[in-house]
Amino acid sequence: MTRARNMPPPIEEEWPAVVLVRPQMGENIGAVARVLLNFGLKSLRLVAPRDAWPNPKALAVAVGADRVLEAAKVDWRVEDAIADATLVLAATARPRGLEKPVWGPREAAANICAAMAQGERPVVMFGPEAAGLETEEVARADAILTLPVNPGFASLNLANAVAVFAFAMAEARQQHDVPSWFRDEESPPATQEVLENLFLHLEEELEHGRFFHPPDKAPLVKRNLRSIFLRARLTDQEVRSLRGVIKALVIGRGGRKKGDI
Amino acid sequence: MTRARNMPPPIEEEWPAVVLVRPQMGENIGAVARVLLNFGLKSLRLVAPRDAWPNPKALAVAVGADRVLEAAKVDWRVEDAIADATLVLAATARPRGLEKPVWGPREAAANICAAMAQGERPVVMFGPEAAGLETEEVARADAILTLPVNPGFASLNLANAVAVFAFAMAEARQQHDVPSWFRDEESPPATQEVLENLFLHLEEELEHGRFFHPPDKAPLVKRNLRSIFLRARLTDQEVRSLRGVIKALVIGRGGRKKGDI
Repeated sequence: MTRARNMPPPIEEEWPAVVLVRPQMGENIGAVARVLLNFGLKSLRLVAPRDAWPNPKALAVAVGADRVLEAAKVDWRVEDAIADATLVLAATARPRGLEKPVWGPREAAANICAAMAQGERPVVMFGPEAAGLETEEVARADAILTLPVNPGFASLNLANAVAVFAFAMAEARQQHDVPSWFRDEESPPATQEVLENLFLHLEEELEHGRFFHPPDKAPLVKRNLRSIFLRARLTDQEVRSLRGVIKALVIGRGGRKKGDI
Repeated sequence: MTRARNMPPPIEEEWPAVVLVRPQMGENIGAVARVLLNFGLKSLRLVAPRDAWPNPKALAVAVGADRVLEAAKVDWRVEDAIADATLVLAATARPRGLEKPVWGPREAAANICAAMAQGERPVVMFGPEAAGLETEEVARADAILTLPVNPGFASLNLANAVAVFAFAMAEARQQHDVPSWFRDEESPPATQEVLENLFLHLEEELEHGRFFHPPDKAPLVKRNLRSIFLRARLTDQEVRSLRGVIKALVIGRGGRKKGDI
């Protein structure tokens, strides 16, 4: 697992713990371990896994998240697995007629973060493949976690369901605004003056090529051209490149004479 | 696939399309098909899958999303797979030194929804397991999709990465506010094919003007130039204007002869 030198250190949060209730396939347990660690979570609990534990199939799929599997707590009963929790969520797609708050991933993550800030210990339970949690198990939860799935095709792979929740947790943890327009810090956007000189250079050469006809439309055409380059938010380096482009394109036109328009 | 009587009808959106570039394992392709349909997406495109297609391993994992696999478009080249797209996202975790917007899943989904509301055709490219997209492939994109992963354990399973994006799409579809990144214009953005022809036109004329020296730097210089125009998200009309600009600039260079480089 390589890591760029200037990247921040790994995130590995103790809470929330993810509880897999009666998971069937070892591969799915391994895939859950991997995606938890991908999004900075590391606490996994298993309730009555179908196959013997430790499970080599889980290890094979975890791809480096072995330590999540090795540290996994295994219990036979749900009540033991969640005994130390102060906030319990149950992931389920089906309406149960239970009077509980129903949260989407984002809402669940926000509530979990708020609870953790007050020292709580939240857990999220996911049921077995295909069958899902039993109503008795859902009834133990403080709230229901539900994903916005296609009603015509709602059955999610277990690791994909956990992936969506873990992603929502990672996002909720960040909460700081990330600038959406990537800029290399070493090459700042060009000033208006630099841009203006680029535009004048281009327009001058276009006049020479008789580009602006009819002449009364020239202001509109110029404005539209400028708009393209303004939208690109050019850097100084890019302005230099574009001026090189213009020079290369006009090369060989023959001697410009003073007074040419 | 049973469905409760009182559930709403299935959602199956044509756009955005998800493009898997050089996927290796059939199981992963099947898992991607399944999770796309889970979150209401149904357009899958494959570029040069490693194994023969159709792939029985993909079908085995798709669990009922067979029709997504059967309808999948298969191409050998990325440029063919995205030729009809008007907005291209590339999923990548690594910084590339490319001047492009970088969007998290939520931001990407909001921008895609906004684009679709204006009739655009967005695609999102995911690279092969382990290696990810090549820089040349990322360079084709209008924006980068990046997930908030643990820097200490960043390598996501392919279907999990797609799951997070597809979930963000499902969430964004349910919301109504539209971000302002997209211009409200009558003229639609140019397709990748139209842009490609513009770039080829420009590059040909620049070769003629001996712009690309030293020659071994030409690919980098071309990529940087393309990046400027991709960022501007040109309309068809603007592409026509720019081609007019190129013609006007090279006018009077003297007779081009066949065989000129």
